[in-house]
Amino acid sequence: MPLKPLSARSSVEPFHAMDVLAEATKRREAGYPVISMAVGQPSHPAPSAALEAARTALGHGRLGYTDALGTSSLRGAIARHYRTRYGVDIDPQRVAVTTGSSAGFNLAFLALFDPGDCVAIARPGYPAYRNILAALGLTVVEVEANAESGFTLTPENLEAAAAKAGKPLNGVLLASPANPTGTVTGRAGLKALADYCHDRGIAFISDEIYHGLTFAGEETTALAVTDEAVIINSFSKYYCMTGWRIGWMVLPETQVRAFERIAQSLYISPPELSQIAAEAALGCEAELDVYKASYAANRDLLLKRLPEIGFSIASPMDGAFYAYADVSRFTNDSMDFARKMLAEINVAATPGLDFDPLEGHRAMRFSYAGAQADMIEAMDRIARWLA
Amino acid sequence: MPLKPLSARSSVEPFHAMDVLAEATKRREAGYPVISMAVGQPSHPAPSAALEAARTALGHGRLGYTDALGTSSLRGAIARHYRTRYGVDIDPQRVAVTTGSSAGFNLAFLALFDPGDCVAIARPGYPAYRNILAALGLTVVEVEANAESGFTLTPENLEAAAAKAGKPLNGVLLASPANPTGTVTGRAGLKALADYCHDRGIAFISDEIYHGLTFAGEETTALAVTDEAVIINSFSKYYCMTGWRIGWMVLPETQVRAFERIAQSLYISPPELSQIAAEAALGCEAELDVYKASYAANRDLLLKRLPEIGFSIASPMDGAFYAYADVSRFTNDSMDFARKMLAEINVAATPGLDFDPLEGHRAMRFSYAGAQADMIEAMDRIARWLA
Repeated sequence: MPLKPLSARSSVEPFHAMDVLAEATKRREAGYPVISMAVGQPSHPAPSAALEAARTALGHGRLGYTDALGTSSLRGAIARHYRTRYGVDIDPQRVAVTTGSSAGFNLAFLALFDPGDCVAIARPGYPAYRNILAALGLTVVEVEANAESGFTLTPENLEAAAAKAGKPLNGVLLASPANPTGTVTGRAGLKALADYCHDRGIAFISDEIYHGLTFAGEETTALAVTDEAVIINSFSKYYCMTGWRIGWMVLPETQVRAFERIAQSLYISPPELSQIAAEAALGCEAELDVYKASYAANRDLLLKRLPEIGFSIASPMDGAFYAYADVSRFTNDSMDFARKMLAEINVAATPGLDFDPLEGHRAMRFSYAGAQADMIEAMDRIARWLA
Repeated sequence: MPLKPLSARSSVEPFHAMDVLAEATKRREAGYPVISMAVGQPSHPAPSAALEAARTALGHGRLGYTDALGTSSLRGAIARHYRTRYGVDIDPQRVAVTTGSSAGFNLAFLALFDPGDCVAIARPGYPAYRNILAALGLTVVEVEANAESGFTLTPENLEAAAAKAGKPLNGVLLASPANPTGTVTGRAGLKALADYCHDRGIAFISDEIYHGLTFAGEETTALAVTDEAVIINSFSKYYCMTGWRIGWMVLPETQVRAFERIAQSLYISPPELSQIAAEAALGCEAELDVYKASYAANRDLLLKRLPEIGFSIASPMDGAFYAYADVSRFTNDSMDFARKMLAEINVAATPGLDFDPLEGHRAMRFSYAGAQADMIEAMDRIARWLA
């Protein structure tokens, strides 16, 4: 017999940014002067205290499995972080350490939803939401987050999307600051969504992984307005620890055990060394705010250069470190445009199709988390290339 | 409205070994002299060259996302490992680095099976198989692997199980060496299973994470008998790197891209530092074989002491580092027995219910990957306790 066919769900879309990364890595290894603005990761290493803690731990015997929801020490430190940073008190038992926010999304979708359930996300939005939801048999309800709705989810556009889908929603997932748009949803907006979900008895997931990287507007955790949301966060972005794969969730108290049960079998535990380093990173805000200032400078650069080049900025850029640009003056095929830009001028950026299956063919996302010299050089190359 | 109820699938069983670990950790932190034989992890640290490679990498700038299937360097090193260790040639492109074997199982189940598909596993067997399969909506067909079938899966017991289930199988998952039984399935047995799957056009998953830890019998990779299997392996056990969360798969060539697409969204990439350390660990067999000899000594100890205590060894103990013991002389409630043993004499072991929902109430699994002095002390405590 021929090899068993793969599952229907294995036909999930690629995460194009990761494909661009793979291609960029291959070209770099072949000696090309690649500048990557494709993937959302800082060029800075983890803060020095985190590196030092890791170095010390390497000399102290075995790194092993920890509790499935993380070490009590890190869970406690994260709980204290909410007090210091937001003035919110939470029980450390509500904190679940995860293997990156990726594990947080997967666990939340598994624990909260059964196959066929409808989950609303913003379009444009982070492609892994859509891909994981689809792989788990959930129905993705993409809600157009346009200028009219302030580029975010609102009770109004959720109602309209549910009506259009012809099925009630079972959950809402909002990112603030958002990828790729940079939208920051303030306290009032979060409260409106939390109330909307509470009134309907549906789940509210708040993706806060770009917290710490807000340049305009008001950064609020959903915990400040509700105890019923699942909060997802990460050490990858503000804390510059992408490759360490370490994140966390804050869960409604009654849901912790169910998440723990699933995490035990699906992940065993998050990497121990990363947990040790992450705990040390929580005290390094002074060092990290210097990096944040460098992103702010890059943001200013892109706000000026991209429109000069002919790419119009399509959304707020208030937070995170992305410029989502309309490139329709030059192409209606962002995939092809991304491929050519990498092949011809060694600049990697992500096609909008990753974030928006309907209108992303005429958009590109540029990550500005890199070094400023690289950003300047990339803008110069693109300007010359398109001139 | 009240908080949205959790999903039906969130009622998945706990991984009891992880619950025992959590309880043991809590007691240890409270100052009790806990000896853990609960979780399958070596007490040794990663090999020295792996630690050195990690230390060096900490000083060399950012640790970031790698390609979703791992660095080309590690994929190449793993491919060479198959040549050196087994005399099997594989294309490095078929190697997928994963965030522990846990990610390998999840990816394999997602890529190979659709909800409702039937997957056969051995009973007793690794509980996370059952729990992940259930969470993903797959039907678990547990096949009794008893003395009659050599404690493994065979075409005969698979046929019987499928007939009993009333549905054809869509896949077969075999571990060799097996957890918890220690069964080593040799080349002929693997070939028979590979042929069985090939003839029916169903998937064959070979869990080889205890390779390197065979004390009796013949250790064979399924790659030696078929190119159609999904191989899952890990640096956790033989390489002593549990807490690093790093494993790998070898995939049929035509399936690589589908696995990559799912991995991109679900995991982004495996932890970079762990990939660097794992690559260095691949040259450390001399150092690791010393550890293996210490497990062999522990195994001899348990083979003598457990029957003296009144626990009869229920299965071969040919590989891995577990003794699966019949404790029915003392209890018919292995969960309660495990709780009391930890509370009263500070020895942690895993209730058989984890591995066998039908008959595990009268079995316990003891991991002998720890230090010999601990094993001796644990046996002494148990003997005194039960006397």
